[in-house]
Amino acid sequence: MAQRDQTPLQLKFYEVIFGTETPAGRWFDLCLILVIMTSVVVIMLDSIPGLHADYGRLFLQVEWLFTLLFTVEYAIRIWCTPNRKGYVMSLYGVVDLLALLPTYLSLLVPQTAPLLIIRLLRILRIFRVLRLLSLLHEANDLAAALQRSGRKIFVFFSLMMILTTIFGCLLYVLEGPGNGFTDIPTSVYWAIVTITTVGYGDVTPVTTAGRAVSATGMLIGYAIIAVPTGIITAELTAAQRFKKEREMTQSRNCSNCSAVERDLRAHYCRNCGSALPRPGGDKADDD
Amino acid sequence: MAQRDQTPLQLKFYEVIFGTETPAGRWFDLCLILVIMTSVVVIMLDSIPGLHADYGRLFLQVEWLFTLLFTVEYAIRIWCTPNRKGYVMSLYGVVDLLALLPTYLSLLVPQTAPLLIIRLLRILRIFRVLRLLSLLHEANDLAAALQRSGRKIFVFFSLMMILTTIFGCLLYVLEGPGNGFTDIPTSVYWAIVTITTVGYGDVTPVTTAGRAVSATGMLIGYAIIAVPTGIITAELTAAQRFKKEREMTQSRNCSNCSAVERDLRAHYCRNCGSALPRPGGDKADDD
Amino acid sequence: MAQRDQTPLQLKFYEVIFGTETPAGRWFDLCLILVIMTSVVVIMLDSIPGLHADYGRLFLQVEWLFTLLFTVEYAIRIWCTPNRKGYVMSLYGVVDLLALLPTYLSLLVPQTAPLLIIRLLRILRIFRVLRLLSLLHEANDLAAALQRSGRKIFVFFSLMMILTTIFGCLLYVLEGPGNGFTDIPTSVYWAIVTITTVGYGDVTPVTTAGRAVSATGMLIGYAIIAVPTGIITAELTAAQRFKKEREMTQSRNCSNCSAVERDLRAHYCRNCGSALPRPGGDKADDD
Amino acid sequence: MAQRDQTPLQLKFYEVIFGTETPAGRWFDLCLILVIMTSVVVIMLDSIPGLHADYGRLFLQVEWLFTLLFTVEYAIRIWCTPNRKGYVMSLYGVVDLLALLPTYLSLLVPQTAPLLIIRLLRILRIFRVLRLLSLLHEANDLAAALQRSGRKIFVFFSLMMILTTIFGCLLYVLEGPGNGFTDIPTSVYWAIVTITTVGYGDVTPVTTAGRAVSATGMLIGYAIIAVPTGIITAELTAAQRFKKEREMTQSRNCSNCSAVERDLRAHYCRNCGSALPRPGGDKADDD
Repeated sequence: MAQRDQTPLQLKFYEVIFGTETPAGRWFDLCLILVIMTSVVVIMLDSIPGLHADYGRLFLQVEWLFTLLFTVEYAIRIWCTPNRKGYVMSLYGVVDLLALLPTYLSLLVPQTAPLLIIRLLRILRIFRVLRLLSLLHEANDLAAALQRSGRKIFVFFSLMMILTTIFGCLLYVLEGPGNGFTDIPTSVYWAIVTITTVGYGDVTPVTTAGRAVSATGMLIGYAIIAVPTGIITAELTAAQRFKKEREMTQSRNCSNCSAVERDLRAHYCRNCGSALPRPGGDKADDD
Repeated sequence: MAQRDQTPLQLKFYEVIFGTETPAGRWFDLCLILVIMTSVVVIMLDSIPGLHADYGRLFLQVEWLFTLLFTVEYAIRIWCTPNRKGYVMSLYGVVDLLALLPTYLSLLVPQTAPLLIIRLLRILRIFRVLRLLSLLHEANDLAAALQRSGRKIFVFFSLMMILTTIFGCLLYVLEGPGNGFTDIPTSVYWAIVTITTVGYGDVTPVTTAGRAVSATGMLIGYAIIAVPTGIITAELTAAQRFKKEREMTQSRNCSNCSAVERDLRAHYCRNCGSALPRPGGDKADDD
Repeated sequence: MAQRDQTPLQLKFYEVIFGTETPAGRWFDLCLILVIMTSVVVIMLDSIPGLHADYGRLFLQVEWLFTLLFTVEYAIRIWCTPNRKGYVMSLYGVVDLLALLPTYLSLLVPQTAPLLIIRLLRILRIFRVLRLLSLLHEANDLAAALQRSGRKIFVFFSLMMILTTIFGCLLYVLEGPGNGFTDIPTSVYWAIVTITTVGYGDVTPVTTAGRAVSATGMLIGYAIIAVPTGIITAELTAAQRFKKEREMTQSRNCSNCSAVERDLRAHYCRNCGSALPRPGGDKADDD
Repeated sequence: MAQRDQTPLQLKFYEVIFGTETPAGRWFDLCLILVIMTSVVVIMLDSIPGLHADYGRLFLQVEWLFTLLFTVEYAIRIWCTPNRKGYVMSLYGVVDLLALLPTYLSLLVPQTAPLLIIRLLRILRIFRVLRLLSLLHEANDLAAALQRSGRKIFVFFSLMMILTTIFGCLLYVLEGPGNGFTDIPTSVYWAIVTITTVGYGDVTPVTTAGRAVSATGMLIGYAIIAVPTGIITAELTAAQRFKKEREMTQSRNCSNCSAVERDLRAHYCRNCGSALPRPGGDKADDD
């Protein structure tokens, strides 16, 4: 690895900015999450025409302030990390850069409103802080369960795609362009809106046949929402049971009657009363 | 504690109003819940313009009747409780006061329509009766399961917020203010409406790209509704299994070292190796 | 009981109409379910103005045919049942009567359109046939699980009522009658539509504050849909596990080493090799 | 069976087209799935009026290209399969034929737009590839769980039909044709839209009574969505537990009477009492 030696000052900064063990590191994380969220809220408010007209200048100044703050933070991160290239090329490094680039680009290229939206990717920086606050431990549990049931969910989505295509085509034929089902992509969009039970109502069946087929589709959608729920619940239940079992069972056998003992605190066999081997021990220094 | 001695009359009232063991106490609770609900219904009906025009006077009289009833009840509660300050400052005491204050305030300040809405907080008083009726036992089970999975649900909602922000921005860029996505907060509102499968249809995508991205968002929303369900179900299943196991394992104490033994088949103490009493037995006729 | 002796003919009819063991009885059930469904479909079609204008006469004739059929069936049921009063007063007897009364009443009282709707209660007669086809066995499993979690679900719905009342009032204050939230009952209706994720879109928030509060309500509704699901799933999982355990465990103890044996087919102790007592036996004639 | 001998060339083609073990076979499947999806996308895009006007000729040419490809593939499949009649009459054979017939028919019969939609059934051909990619293994797990809970789900849907019929009729009576509930089928359609929480908003209650009944229906629908979820989750949880248990219990056979022993701790055969081989061992060094 291209890891360099850090000066004591770099090490100090590294612990505060990247670490989470010291109180200073935790305060830094808390401030960072606050600054990120404020900056995201400002971008959102700036997009409201009324507020932009009244407070546009203020929002711009605040935005530049945040950009400078993030720039300084980004520079310090590069300066104090032991593996500079590794940080810059990492996902977090790229997100950190994306958080400040658009504002500078808006100086060079005037009309970059859509580009400025990219600044909202700053919200992804929250993941960094979540990770540090060890909340990602819970997220990892969830992610692991999702990953284990990934193939099942992929199959489920393939079936959903086929189902929505079939229902979309059926309603395109039954209702036709006159009733809002202007083309097959629109009809498939309608089928997804319906089967996921979102139901905007911007495209709705009007004919009796179309309504009957729609109702069937809704009932099917209502029933198959149970499938991903069942998959993930079964996975989470299994994970929880497995975790508990692993905690509970470090079983030993009685050397006399070979009965199984799962309680780590037991000293004597519950079946014959003879002394048990030590739990997890190498059977050494056992009397 | 600032607990005072109660006169026999105060004790009698205390048992009826605060207690639930006596038949009189239960009747009082039942009447209270009926009065609260009637009063809430009256407030609701009074807000309908047509009914307000016809029966406004009647509703006002009924409302004053209820307010007087609640005032008398509040006074008696203060009078008969052994710890007056404790009651007044408690959450229930504050809710009891909020239930009657707005009506009196409307005499002093004429235009207090929004303030009168606060009277609807009376509905929170139902919790008191639910608690007494021991139905909150079931609520506690639910609350405990929710609390244990609280961190997982917090992580889930953080991810939801980030997801809805990203989808909201995407559609703001793709659809633009012309198609109803006037600003980013509106777009995020649309994303929440869509991903939670509510789907009002007040803001809907019109362009093909916007519809394709929306459909993806719906399918994701449809799949991740499985996650909180899975979390809570796994928690409730575990709680139920734990409860059942605790019921099934009838624990005994070793008569020699008083260690706890849960296994019904154990004959000897796992701690000291001496014989155990028989399970479920009266410790008599033990060999 | 007022049970009379049946003539052989009555017994024969009783077996066919009420029973399900004989082939004739099963054919009768199948025909009955077909007639009921056709009659329900006819009532539905007759309500469509266009079809009523063209085929109104035909529908009326068909309806009278069905009514006569049901009348004959009802008469035979009374005639052949051993306990006449019991049948007439039973839930099924009342539903059978309700299925034919409205048509006769329409002769006496001309304008009884709403009354004719009662004929649709015929659909409840399907339950009788489902029961006979032993499909209600599955329904009973579901009903038992629902009943066991009844108190939890009651608490859940009380909380839902309180939650929707609070959200309804909040939006009544925030949006006001100008934006469709004309009165508190309408606002509560909107809150129920929103929190259950139905989302018609007939009443929607317009102000920023209203939308923010609504979005919060949606996310809460999206999360708490997990609660009834969790309750019922945990109950069904427990029921299934209990059923399986009861099937699997009829445990015996080895008379030599008291090891537990759960396999019903085992003849010898797996621990010490001595002969086991017979399963389920009274320990009599055991060698 | 009418199975013929295959020439080596036929066998070679058979392995590539029908098989999935060889690298060539896997490449063929991947190409096939790509071609199918492209062809489906082309049909969808062709239905958009704007694109049809501009690129209609191109789409037609591409469509003919795909049809010829599928025709060649179909011919080769028939030529190389050992059981020609079996393939042609099988479900996959019929779908393969349906994928190319409509395009040829459009030459003979000019106005066959609805018929051309049938080409979209090509999407069903994806199942064949999914099966080959062994992803249908996961689908089979899901299908088995759905099948085992099939009777429960049938009962659930019967109750849903009865419930929606009753709610539909109630709102037809309460709201009447003036408020969009023009006839009972429309009202039942509305009830299905509501209870499945789709909620288009094309038909909505307007009267207070109608809204109150609707709200009740929504809450019921919101609660009973838990039922199919619970059924399938309980089934999947049980399936997973069973699978794990089967994996964990490593069965042995008694060397004397060949009875199966699953308990890892057993020392003696439970059937004949003779000593068992060690679990997981190579039957060597047994004392």
